[in-house]
Amino acid sequence: MDELDIETVAEASLEDPVLIEGLPGVGHVGKLAADHILEELADESTLVRRVYSQEFPPQVTVEDGVTSLTCAEIHAVTPDSGRDMLVLTGDHQAQTNAGHYVLTDAFLDISEEFGASELYALGGVPTGELIDEYAVLGAVTDESLLEPLEEQGVEFREDEPAGGIVGVSGLLLGLGEQRGFDAVCLMGETSGYLVDPKSARAVLDVLEARLEFEVEYDSLDDRADEMEDVIGKIQEMEQQQQAMEVPSDDDLRYIG
Amino acid sequence: MDELDIETVAEASLEDPVLIEGLPGVGHVGKLAADHILEELADESTLVRRVYSQEFPPQVTVEDGVTSLTCAEIHAVTPDSGRDMLVLTGDHQAQTNAGHYVLTDAFLDISEEFGASELYALGGVPTGELIDEYAVLGAVTDESLLEPLEEQGVEFREDEPAGGIVGVSGLLLGLGEQRGFDAVCLMGETSGYLVDPKSARAVLDVLEARLEFEVEYDSLDDRADEMEDVIGKIQEMEQQQQAMEVPSDDDLRYIG
Amino acid sequence: MDELDIETVAEASLEDPVLIEGLPGVGHVGKLAADHILEELADESTLVRRVYSQEFPPQVTVEDGVTSLTCAEIHAVTPDSGRDMLVLTGDHQAQTNAGHYVLTDAFLDISEEFGASELYALGGVPTGELIDEYAVLGAVTDESLLEPLEEQGVEFREDEPAGGIVGVSGLLLGLGEQRGFDAVCLMGETSGYLVDPKSARAVLDVLEARLEFEVEYDSLDDRADEMEDVIGKIQEMEQQQQAMEVPSDDDLRYIG
Amino acid sequence: MDELDIETVAEASLEDPVLIEGLPGVGHVGKLAADHILEELADESTLVRRVYSQEFPPQVTVEDGVTSLTCAEIHAVTPDSGRDMLVLTGDHQAQTNAGHYVLTDAFLDISEEFGASELYALGGVPTGELIDEYAVLGAVTDESLLEPLEEQGVEFREDEPAGGIVGVSGLLLGLGEQRGFDAVCLMGETSGYLVDPKSARAVLDVLEARLEFEVEYDSLDDRADEMEDVIGKIQEMEQQQQAMEVPSDDDLRYIG
Repeated sequence: MDELDIETVAEASLEDPVLIEGLPGVGHVGKLAADHILEELADESTLVRRVYSQEFPPQVTVEDGVTSLTCAEIHAVTPDSGRDMLVLTGDHQAQTNAGHYVLTDAFLDISEEFGASELYALGGVPTGELIDEYAVLGAVTDESLLEPLEEQGVEFREDEPAGGIVGVSGLLLGLGEQRGFDAVCLMGETSGYLVDPKSARAVLDVLEARLEFEVEYDSLDDRADEMEDVIGKIQEMEQQQQAMEVPSDDDLRYIG
Repeated sequence: MDELDIETVAEASLEDPVLIEGLPGVGHVGKLAADHILEELADESTLVRRVYSQEFPPQVTVEDGVTSLTCAEIHAVTPDSGRDMLVLTGDHQAQTNAGHYVLTDAFLDISEEFGASELYALGGVPTGELIDEYAVLGAVTDESLLEPLEEQGVEFREDEPAGGIVGVSGLLLGLGEQRGFDAVCLMGETSGYLVDPKSARAVLDVLEARLEFEVEYDSLDDRADEMEDVIGKIQEMEQQQQAMEVPSDDDLRYIG
Repeated sequence: MDELDIETVAEASLEDPVLIEGLPGVGHVGKLAADHILEELADESTLVRRVYSQEFPPQVTVEDGVTSLTCAEIHAVTPDSGRDMLVLTGDHQAQTNAGHYVLTDAFLDISEEFGASELYALGGVPTGELIDEYAVLGAVTDESLLEPLEEQGVEFREDEPAGGIVGVSGLLLGLGEQRGFDAVCLMGETSGYLVDPKSARAVLDVLEARLEFEVEYDSLDDRADEMEDVIGKIQEMEQQQQAMEVPSDDDLRYIG
Repeated sequence: MDELDIETVAEASLEDPVLIEGLPGVGHVGKLAADHILEELADESTLVRRVYSQEFPPQVTVEDGVTSLTCAEIHAVTPDSGRDMLVLTGDHQAQTNAGHYVLTDAFLDISEEFGASELYALGGVPTGELIDEYAVLGAVTDESLLEPLEEQGVEFREDEPAGGIVGVSGLLLGLGEQRGFDAVCLMGETSGYLVDPKSARAVLDVLEARLEFEVEYDSLDDRADEMEDVIGKIQEMEQQQQAMEVPSDDDLRYIG
């Protein structure tokens, strides 16, 4: 295998599609959101490309005894209502600095091949504490993109996220801009300790309004309820251990 | 030396051979198994290729004062009964992510050169506790391979091994599948604390039945007995130290 | 993007310019100094080149919601009095050993393109304690450069800096010498615990005299005063905590 | 600069020369020994090649204010008595696995260019305790080289050094053998805690007898005496601290 190996699984004809990226990251927010779109719009989705790379971990996953080589997958989605989409998901980020550049260029190549010139990178931004109101932070490649997103409730804060945006999400904006993409990063606030379906839902609410597609949220809400149960049990255990002490969010461990 | 340097030590004519991989890993299960085949079938074995690579550690081993450059070795084995084999062994794994891809491709190139289209990657899967019954877990590249292995007692469990299969063993399945190989990973359960000849024997029992070769196990059983003695002494020391406390497996250190 | 991508933002015609480098490092001395030149001589400055590279972190910065891909920037500066300058700044160093070589070569290529054959790498040298008198240490590629700098108060000490000079600053001298540059490193003494505008001012005093340009220092002095306030507050807190004990500089944390 | 840049400083005509390598390592034994040859035979030595590489740290050293880019140096030595030599020294090892391979190949290229087909890699082997009798361990690429070295007191022990020989020293044997070199590694026993001129002297005694050159040892012995003083003072301090307790070698820190 070369450094990069793009497998053509199927072709699809899309009209002015937009790339949606949801690789693993903080709270798995981006991945949960992208996977949810693919689950809910399964009938309108086709797997079109697999991207294999030496930049991914040297690994196969095993499901019921059958292996699959680590890769990123791109689905073409043509919903009944709303914009056509290319949805990018996968189980891994690149393992080196340079690898993030290499993979992002590959994802942009494929996007251009399908005629996309707009993209949304989905992710989470850690707050360090449990969240009540799930705000969605934004970042864009061009000032002209700010207003329509602000109208949909996306928040743009001075100097946030403080450390910038790293990995493929960041580079999709950085390298995308160089290629003329209108690129947006939507980041759901999340504690950073837990896989966070509620944060993913907040991000999807924005995206749905923006691209005018429609999905059900029952399965995501169910998963959010399960996480609530987990949090509740942890807090209970904390309280029992600490008797009269107030439980501290800091003690929650990351739970997937 | 280039990134990769394949030395042709000898040629051999094989009939529909199967590649057996046994590089170092958990419990040295794969390496013990592959080395045992080569020891027992020494008269039917020929060293055909050495693979040197910048991906291996920059190192020579020293035996009785004479040095050998780190490499992987491939032997051609033509047993009196059973399938012809290419047996891949060595003392090291690649040192980088990309290196695993580079080496695996080289191993598959050599396998194809000798006409192989089937492979068995041998290894161990850590359980975290001492083992009584040595189960052998399996993973395959294609569903059609499941049944014949299940008949020989190989277990296929949902979501095991949990972290997938990494390194050359994993990529032999992942990249092998892309080249049309029927690829199988056989993983002997092992504590993960000790070099485990018993686990290697369990893996070899499956492989022997599958490929219809025949080897003696006296030397491997002797080595297993030695390990039992080591474990016994450690447990004794633990018991003396802890007086009436029950010894804990967790305290055993990795012993080669 | 290739390993290296040099964007031509504008052209400029310079007369015998000198390269001034101020990338991030100890006490941010070099970066503060280079940024200050660009702020004070904003009207005489033009951004001429951006250097993007896979050697930089895979990251965008976000300012008021709008992203910028990590890069180094080179400005052409033609002050009313004094030498023409190319000023190199940025937010990041290379992330690998080899990356420092790659980036330095690119910076030297651009410098040669604009006709430069002389360079000043600016930085800090950590002393481990708060500084009263800000000495400026020097290092040069050729003995003939020592005397004129000594006349301007630059100190050259046997075996200092002890560990040599690392990163782009070091390589601008090492690789610059190979290309025939007269190269100088000016290192302001700094505690190493704090962003140090006073050290940057000491370095600029030397550079200003050497290149005969003129800048105001009000904004840098204001920033130095702010840092003094921070130090004062920390020392006060220390004193309160330790009551009668003498406060220790070692306890100061790095503050930007 | 490319990955590798070999500067021709001077030419020299050598008769059947032998390469002597002394890069930094355990106890600086190899480097001390190689540097000592160059000091003592300064009049018979010519610097012929400098090897610059992206595999070295991105660094210049500073001496009296003047910088030098990190490199390895090869001197041609034509002693009045004894074999001609190429002596390889430097201040750094490669910084990556692959870098050791790249640099070793460059050193062998240069050696072949000067007609060498024999080499001695010099180094130290750590014992973990202070040494009284400085044994010299050996390793060779071919069994035929064992006997003449054993006659000069070099010891060859089963399975020592246990971890093999790593870095350029190891690869000079590993890659040297592939190119037809007769290659020897001489390793002086050393505590591993201290720069060890006595161990370097033990290695040089063997080499001198083997290659029939002659050097004085006054300066190396002086340096050994200085180290003895340092050790003495440390032990004294230990004894004072521990009053009646016996001082432990394990507490000595590495001192250059």
